[in-house]
Amino acid sequence: MFIIGELINGMYLRVGAAILEKNAGFIQSLALRQVEAGAQALDVNCGPASRDAVSDMRWLVETVQKSVCVPLCLDSTKADAVEEGLKSAQAKTIINSTSADIPKLELYVSLAKKYNASLIALLMDKRGVPQDKDRRLELAAQILNFAQEAGLSFSELYLDPVVLPVGAAQNQLFDILEVIRDCKILSAPAAKTVVGLSNVSQGTKNRSLINRTFLAMAQCYGLDAAILDPLDRDLMDSLVSAEVILNKAVYCDSYLEAYGKGRT
Amino acid sequence: MFIIGELINGMYLRVGAAILEKNAGFIQSLALRQVEAGAQALDVNCGPASRDAVSDMRWLVETVQKSVCVPLCLDSTKADAVEEGLKSAQAKTIINSTSADIPKLELYVSLAKKYNASLIALLMDKRGVPQDKDRRLELAAQILNFAQEAGLSFSELYLDPVVLPVGAAQNQLFDILEVIRDCKILSAPAAKTVVGLSNVSQGTKNRSLINRTFLAMAQCYGLDAAILDPLDRDLMDSLVSAEVILNKAVYCDSYLEAYGKGRT
Repeated sequence: MFIIGELINGMYLRVGAAILEKNAGFIQSLALRQVEAGAQALDVNCGPASRDAVSDMRWLVETVQKSVCVPLCLDSTKADAVEEGLKSAQAKTIINSTSADIPKLELYVSLAKKYNASLIALLMDKRGVPQDKDRRLELAAQILNFAQEAGLSFSELYLDPVVLPVGAAQNQLFDILEVIRDCKILSAPAAKTVVGLSNVSQGTKNRSLINRTFLAMAQCYGLDAAILDPLDRDLMDSLVSAEVILNKAVYCDSYLEAYGKGRT
Repeated sequence: MFIIGELINGMYLRVGAAILEKNAGFIQSLALRQVEAGAQALDVNCGPASRDAVSDMRWLVETVQKSVCVPLCLDSTKADAVEEGLKSAQAKTIINSTSADIPKLELYVSLAKKYNASLIALLMDKRGVPQDKDRRLELAAQILNFAQEAGLSFSELYLDPVVLPVGAAQNQLFDILEVIRDCKILSAPAAKTVVGLSNVSQGTKNRSLINRTFLAMAQCYGLDAAILDPLDRDLMDSLVSAEVILNKAVYCDSYLEAYGKGRT
């Protein structure tokens, strides 16, 4: 499981304030803590309050990569901010994200190729998030077709089925698990799959419990990557245990401690 | 998910002592606590130290059903003790268990029919526990064939894939998840599936964590029933959350509390 830390996001009040005040120490500490807790990549998002997304993204990327050396996941709805992040980044980057709409695919696939970046593609389009499994898979096929014709390797693609909150779309979560599994048979090599995990528990009272229970399920349906809170210890313990159960991490009596030591 | 409480088992020291001393209060309290915590049935097992399994089983069944009125899962390797339990039980019973060996199937299928009981059938035979998925499914087919010919309804059968400890058979747990799923296509109507959950964490240091992570996976692979410790609150919270995620229990903000109140 490829773990992308979600915490450097301006929608969180303290992070938003740190971006506004250019408080590098706060951001760097948050980056380091996530990597020490197991994040293998970090999402960076200026947040909705950013007054200049381009310069804020540049500052975030430059600030974070002074403290850790992991791939950055450039998370913005503004293409110029994403491109600024691509220019500023020293390590591998992941663009977060395109939808299945052709104009967006044209733009972001071209950026991914130009900067040798990976690309997260949401299984949604201008009509919104599909309400059934077949439509999600149709959009996945559309994205894969576009990538193939444009010459972007499937191995650079992360398909994101767009996890919905259990309180709003309870009847769709099993579909989403099946989409995670079935995306794998649409191309060879298979594209990777990713979820923005915290969405599943949005608005609930038991966020960590719902997050980790859904993640264990998604893991056994073959999920490759997740954007999540690596500082949630219960979540990380569950994630590692699921890896062990699925024979993707070696069991030993102290596998939790061993995993922690391996990270730092 | 049909929850069978595992705690009335003479292999636990205090339970073994209570059986020896015919301490009805202890057993009845343990029965009540499990049902209040969410168990819909109770496993009863005299344990290895029992000197008279027949009379101990009778005493256990009579004692437990004075305190709770739920199906009892008669758990013994001794057929005469199982039959004594069948005779003494007032509510529905589940025989735990037969293997796929024909002489055992002849004996236990006949008892299940005679006493209108359900039957747990382990996917193993005298050669032991299979080491691969295909052999497990072969044994499932053998059991289903036998049941059909003997006239035992598939709906009375619980197939148990025999969960192995993660420390001993890490590479087989994903096979076991797939067996739980694939058992369903071997007959119409499908037989139910059950696991003895605690086996998966036998000998590990993080038993509850491994139990609940594996259970969430098994739930999304369609598991119908589990023999488990209902007093493990973290396990039960995870179980209910998985039911909600799989749309088998209704979501509301206080679903954990609602589930607790519904039980008692």
